[in-house]
Amino acid sequence: MPLRSFEDFTVGEIVEVGPLTVTADDIKSFAAEFDPQPMHLDEGAAQNAIVGGLFASGMHTVCLHMRLLVDGLLHDTASMGSPGVDEVRYLAPVRAGELTLCLEVVELRPSHSRPQWGLLKLRSHMVNADGTAVLRMASTLIVGRREAAR
Amino acid sequence: MPLRSFEDFTVGEIVEVGPLTVTADDIKSFAAEFDPQPMHLDEGAAQNAIVGGLFASGMHTVCLHMRLLVDGLLHDTASMGSPGVDEVRYLAPVRAGELTLCLEVVELRPSHSRPQWGLLKLRSHMVNADGTAVLRMASTLIVGRREAAR
Repeated sequence: MPLRSFEDFTVGEIVEVGPLTVTADDIKSFAAEFDPQPMHLDEGAAQNAIVGGLFASGMHTVCLHMRLLVDGLLHDTASMGSPGVDEVRYLAPVRAGELTLCLEVVELRPSHSRPQWGLLKLRSHMVNADGTAVLRMASTLIVGRREAAR
Repeated sequence: MPLRSFEDFTVGEIVEVGPLTVTADDIKSFAAEFDPQPMHLDEGAAQNAIVGGLFASGMHTVCLHMRLLVDGLLHDTASMGSPGVDEVRYLAPVRAGELTLCLEVVELRPSHSRPQWGLLKLRSHMVNADGTAVLRMASTLIVGRREAAR
């Protein structure tokens, strides 16, 4: 299977990915490494936070978004990396359970400085098993162009 | 030690944190879980990417930023969470080695809807052992106010 190039995407294309399961142990082990704050580490301490009960670090949520983005889109795309992320919004606490991701291609722009590349802008929403949106993100990918490669 | 409240911060305050060491094994194990793309998983495959040699997932870099933010600031702050991240820019590839973080408080705004909270905006740069800036981020924290708590 050839990889999808910049020319193979269209604005308005929607990709649904998942579900992916996150467990309470996953939440605690991520937090121990990267975000050791009580509400992400321990059910008891979490009861005292604004949000009651254990919930995932926002950064953990962003990493789960990355995994779904790779599984749903990047694994068969001529992905050349990313300049960064334009926006992250934590909409609701992420508990142990299933998450799905809805990605939309909102802009396709050939790179002027690097004609072998195009910039693909994505808007995405992550939703939990109850149908509640937990994360909104806007990000940019660099994707190889087939025409420039000839 | 009482936690630092919103009133204890000043615009222009700078916090330097680190170093924190990331190894090639850390880079590969993070990638296996969250960003399984060849250039983050395997030195050999990485030679064929735009950036030669193994380098960390951008999301891994953002997670290391989170860890330094907790160690340098949040651990003794009345942190109530975050609405999200306003910008992430990957400036240079992150290799195995030491990273340090420079955080600057750029805005302090009391919340109108929640008088017990204030919003603290941060600008941050992560730098490698060569002094090269590898990551720029803009993020917002929610911090408890001492006065509203009385």
